[in-house]
Amino acid sequence: MSEFIGKTGIVVRNIPRAESSVIDELGRYGVATVHEAQGRKGLLDCALRPIQQGVSIAGSAVTVLVAPGDNWMFHVAVEQCRPGDILVVAPSSPCSDGYFGDLLATSLQARGVRALVIDAGVRDSQTLRQMGFPVWSRAVSAQGTVKEVLGSVNLSLVCGGQLVKPGDVVVADDDGVVIVRRNEAAQVLEASRKRGDLEEQKRLRLASGELGLDIYAMRPRLAEKGLRYVDSLEDLEG
Amino acid sequence: MSEFIGKTGIVVRNIPRAESSVIDELGRYGVATVHEAQGRKGLLDCALRPIQQGVSIAGSAVTVLVAPGDNWMFHVAVEQCRPGDILVVAPSSPCSDGYFGDLLATSLQARGVRALVIDAGVRDSQTLRQMGFPVWSRAVSAQGTVKEVLGSVNLSLVCGGQLVKPGDVVVADDDGVVIVRRNEAAQVLEASRKRGDLEEQKRLRLASGELGLDIYAMRPRLAEKGLRYVDSLEDLEG
Amino acid sequence: MSEFIGKTGIVVRNIPRAESSVIDELGRYGVATVHEAQGRKGLLDCALRPIQQGVSIAGSAVTVLVAPGDNWMFHVAVEQCRPGDILVVAPSSPCSDGYFGDLLATSLQARGVRALVIDAGVRDSQTLRQMGFPVWSRAVSAQGTVKEVLGSVNLSLVCGGQLVKPGDVVVADDDGVVIVRRNEAAQVLEASRKRGDLEEQKRLRLASGELGLDIYAMRPRLAEKGLRYVDSLEDLEG
Amino acid sequence: MSEFIGKTGIVVRNIPRAESSVIDELGRYGVATVHEAQGRKGLLDCALRPIQQGVSIAGSAVTVLVAPGDNWMFHVAVEQCRPGDILVVAPSSPCSDGYFGDLLATSLQARGVRALVIDAGVRDSQTLRQMGFPVWSRAVSAQGTVKEVLGSVNLSLVCGGQLVKPGDVVVADDDGVVIVRRNEAAQVLEASRKRGDLEEQKRLRLASGELGLDIYAMRPRLAEKGLRYVDSLEDLEG
Amino acid sequence: MSEFIGKTGIVVRNIPRAESSVIDELGRYGVATVHEAQGRKGLLDCALRPIQQGVSIAGSAVTVLVAPGDNWMFHVAVEQCRPGDILVVAPSSPCSDGYFGDLLATSLQARGVRALVIDAGVRDSQTLRQMGFPVWSRAVSAQGTVKEVLGSVNLSLVCGGQLVKPGDVVVADDDGVVIVRRNEAAQVLEASRKRGDLEEQKRLRLASGELGLDIYAMRPRLAEKGLRYVDSLEDLEG
Amino acid sequence: MSEFIGKTGIVVRNIPRAESSVIDELGRYGVATVHEAQGRKGLLDCALRPIQQGVSIAGSAVTVLVAPGDNWMFHVAVEQCRPGDILVVAPSSPCSDGYFGDLLATSLQARGVRALVIDAGVRDSQTLRQMGFPVWSRAVSAQGTVKEVLGSVNLSLVCGGQLVKPGDVVVADDDGVVIVRRNEAAQVLEASRKRGDLEEQKRLRLASGELGLDIYAMRPRLAEKGLRYVDSLEDLEG
Repeated sequence: MSEFIGKTGIVVRNIPRAESSVIDELGRYGVATVHEAQGRKGLLDCALRPIQQGVSIAGSAVTVLVAPGDNWMFHVAVEQCRPGDILVVAPSSPCSDGYFGDLLATSLQARGVRALVIDAGVRDSQTLRQMGFPVWSRAVSAQGTVKEVLGSVNLSLVCGGQLVKPGDVVVADDDGVVIVRRNEAAQVLEASRKRGDLEEQKRLRLASGELGLDIYAMRPRLAEKGLRYVDSLEDLEG
Repeated sequence: MSEFIGKTGIVVRNIPRAESSVIDELGRYGVATVHEAQGRKGLLDCALRPIQQGVSIAGSAVTVLVAPGDNWMFHVAVEQCRPGDILVVAPSSPCSDGYFGDLLATSLQARGVRALVIDAGVRDSQTLRQMGFPVWSRAVSAQGTVKEVLGSVNLSLVCGGQLVKPGDVVVADDDGVVIVRRNEAAQVLEASRKRGDLEEQKRLRLASGELGLDIYAMRPRLAEKGLRYVDSLEDLEG
Repeated sequence: MSEFIGKTGIVVRNIPRAESSVIDELGRYGVATVHEAQGRKGLLDCALRPIQQGVSIAGSAVTVLVAPGDNWMFHVAVEQCRPGDILVVAPSSPCSDGYFGDLLATSLQARGVRALVIDAGVRDSQTLRQMGFPVWSRAVSAQGTVKEVLGSVNLSLVCGGQLVKPGDVVVADDDGVVIVRRNEAAQVLEASRKRGDLEEQKRLRLASGELGLDIYAMRPRLAEKGLRYVDSLEDLEG
Repeated sequence: MSEFIGKTGIVVRNIPRAESSVIDELGRYGVATVHEAQGRKGLLDCALRPIQQGVSIAGSAVTVLVAPGDNWMFHVAVEQCRPGDILVVAPSSPCSDGYFGDLLATSLQARGVRALVIDAGVRDSQTLRQMGFPVWSRAVSAQGTVKEVLGSVNLSLVCGGQLVKPGDVVVADDDGVVIVRRNEAAQVLEASRKRGDLEEQKRLRLASGELGLDIYAMRPRLAEKGLRYVDSLEDLEG
Repeated sequence: MSEFIGKTGIVVRNIPRAESSVIDELGRYGVATVHEAQGRKGLLDCALRPIQQGVSIAGSAVTVLVAPGDNWMFHVAVEQCRPGDILVVAPSSPCSDGYFGDLLATSLQARGVRALVIDAGVRDSQTLRQMGFPVWSRAVSAQGTVKEVLGSVNLSLVCGGQLVKPGDVVVADDDGVVIVRRNEAAQVLEASRKRGDLEEQKRLRLASGELGLDIYAMRPRLAEKGLRYVDSLEDLEG
Repeated sequence: MSEFIGKTGIVVRNIPRAESSVIDELGRYGVATVHEAQGRKGLLDCALRPIQQGVSIAGSAVTVLVAPGDNWMFHVAVEQCRPGDILVVAPSSPCSDGYFGDLLATSLQARGVRALVIDAGVRDSQTLRQMGFPVWSRAVSAQGTVKEVLGSVNLSLVCGGQLVKPGDVVVADDDGVVIVRRNEAAQVLEASRKRGDLEEQKRLRLASGELGLDIYAMRPRLAEKGLRYVDSLEDLEG
């Protein structure tokens, strides 16, 4: 499937999606937990930042490849979206233009799309926040785009340095965005639950003043690596 | 006029300004709409970001050229400002120092100046937000500046990659900053109104679920360019 | 002492700290004032930004050197912290990974630590804001770290381009972070008070419409440097 | 196959490679031609630059995923290399450390490896040039690395923003690096030959003074889009 | 004239140019001297770097505004060039694509064009060096462009943060690029000659071991500003 | 001593220097070896790059703190230099201006100064190369500077993220710049010699085809960490 990366002029109508209950629960665990739970894979470049604060969300990736300065494919993509989807957009070469604004957001919201992740710029940022349409982007820029060059919809692409396949689960919050392979989603959710429980227990112990050094039994290994404690700097200098 | 770009040691006392009703209405349309309405010209580099959120404003540019690490010309500029003005400041070479803080903001507010746009840094950012004095800047930095080297006030300059003439209309919001030539302001306002109306109509249609593909009649041209729909990835691979 | 910069495998248990009343009052003056008051030294790179807004704080530096992608030393550092401390962390080479999240913050809060300053990334940013644990960092990233390589605790290090010694006073707010040498803290506080008073007086005069040009008696020196006023651009061109 | 992206702790011993005559001929066409010939796919981020000048080369990708600041996997990878291979290395999170120097280059040269492409830093750059071992990297840095954390060898990875599969053809020259899928190599070579011939003909015509406007028959379409010629700026202003 | 900045769909056929003997002599003085001689104006952003080393050149600006990822206007511009011209190209929004390669360079060379200055990327960099066609660019990238969107030729534009008018003199060398207004060229040349002579005299005195402190009589002013000499650090600490 | 970091208005006349034979031999080992030999400390930010290629050098640091856009202190520093010194310059806030050109280089060469390391910009880069005066800088820019604001000479400063003390040994080559504390120079030289010998032996073994895996006996530890070899990707998928 990845053979089609970079190919243009194609729209794939039907893509498999993960189960919605799995997707929604992944969204509740958030990016840091899910990223850990799946073995630290799939994290997008931290230069992609939310334009809002405090939103945690998950959905199915509808992937869109666009030309630099050209947002034509957004309109093609809208038609392929279903409730619960998240648009994942990458330009074929680096571009900070404002590909996306309140009109496209209105159209996506009308179809039940949950968010936009874009390795480029957006505009109408204040209106997007007021509409409650969440966006993770590399830039905010009012620079408009044209509609002249074909890209693709629902082919695999690289966004924020990670491979994204149509139908992958996108989890996004204030920490950024992480991609979960569709066919690993259930298993990653299971691992997220375990990790969530474990973290909760640790949090309680740490909050009570117990040290990570003791909870994780780190002292012997630190000593073995040669960590040396001195009472004061003078001891070191002496 | 642009022959004087980069010249120092000059203060121009009287500059023409656009009509205040035109300026104010441009401010209500915001950066993205105004930028489109004037043919996508005059947008400042998107690295100039607001230090606050949710402010949309417009005013007449009082331009200030400063030396790197030297904010002397701000004090000279204050005297040239009138109510409704916006200070537009560019350093003669790149600098992230905090040229501007709450004292200068107090002085500008006392003269009715509406905002600062600066291709450099500012400080006292929290106080500036509390005072309600809006700023668009390239950086926030507490690094102070000196008062040793002359710049200029009210000569044309390049700020954020765009030519700004004294008296130009500055429109700024969460998306960034756009410059409108003073003598084009009325006509850009007219175009903004038309665009605003048009967008409103489109928004309603999009909100009702109509597709941009149909509203803009894009399907024939997409087909002509060779866009190909496949039912699933398997169809593509087969 | 600076001879030990970059050395690893050492933890210094006891460090001198400034008087808490001095520290707290420095925190109230904020970064810009304190930076000025101490002669414009000690300001960290403005790329280190707060993840929250509106927090102004000060504390004693507990310094932590970490390997890229390795947060082991955080756990070692927690044990060395006392109420009122601020963790100051630098990686031995540039890294944007999320070294720090809500669990470590819980542990630090339990010991009365006030904040984290890190020349790298953090994660769980939304939870950190909800917990009220303030952070200044170069990045927000969910990318996790390992626990394999020793660093050091409480040796001098360079963070954000500035030398930080254990026990130095860290002052941080929306403008960034400034370091005050422990043995200069009282004298910097005195200078901050003077500056604060002076600024208050100036603010009143500026708010009443008086010009900086007159308050600071700048006109003669501007004239001496050759500043020339023209009534309009035409005068210049003519 | 891309499901394994980001997985660590795995070494794949046998990978398919393209035919060596195809690889070598692709190397002679160079990055710009091959990139065009395959439909503008597979180009690595232009921040990956050669440390030498004037080298044009191609080979089979042996892929290496490494932890930040940890070059252990290089040693594992060397054993998997064959004559004609090119090492393609990506860190699991951004890092500019000098992962690679003259000793590893000596080892790779002894096995007939042709080059290194790394989305991180290298050191001993002058010696590497003297040895004639070509490198494309994101940084030059003497910062050393440790050997503590497992990565992987010969799993797919994302390097410079592009998916690279083990056995893909890597083409690199002064313009950068492009990846050709192994199973598309022969067909891309054929397209490169055609493009090369075509460009040669165009070069002769352009060198003789013929205009691209005429060779490519652009004038009617420019006119249709509304391009307007004026004799001088005055005509435009009048 | 600057009113037309950002306008598209226009080609101006005839532009005034400076006298060729003036242009050529400016090229011999180089960027640093010319920039000083004209009062430190017109220097392009230092991110625009030569792809070759040791070339010093000057010519008349033919300005080209292009859309992001679209090099159509280059072909239109070639026809407007005359021997001695330098193409100055800026994209309407930031773009690092390889707009320009060996075929366009062949076409420009056939018309006697001396160089390219572009606030974007170029490709075929090795061939361009071999052809002896000098380029100053923001990036080297093999990423190709399309021919779909109109820009303009020979309107004023902002390139590398500076206003460039068609017919301005472009001076470029290893230090970067500086723009001289056409109608100031003769006077800037005169100032360059004077500066060149003066520098030659200073160079001789400095080479003989005389100090700048004495040649420029700096000691009294340094003392007046409060510069204090101490014999050793101990004197300072004591 | 580090208490004086950031202080201005001071020139220290006499600084201790390391033995010249030690300095010279450190220069022959180069940056990567010396950096390793001293425990990976003291490496300057890899954004400081040489403007020439193939120069490897060492000398005693004469430190210069300068204001942004102000090179006055260079002239003061020249007088304090002795044969074998290297000027190490840092601006008090980030600046890319061309602080240094061929005249200052002439003056430094006349005093036997070996090189310049500057966390800012230089100009006349081609002439500097022709003169054989080596420079490591953050930028090349023709932008001139003024002479208005005092800095300091021979106080400790932070340059490229590292603390540099006057009299420290500066080692620089194509890989960058590393600082060796003066009082550690002899011992770092000894360690460099050992490392150099060891590397030579390893190079011979690696060149003969022996693997690092075997030379460094890595296989057991890799197995212990869980590294798993599979014959082909199919084995992994099955």
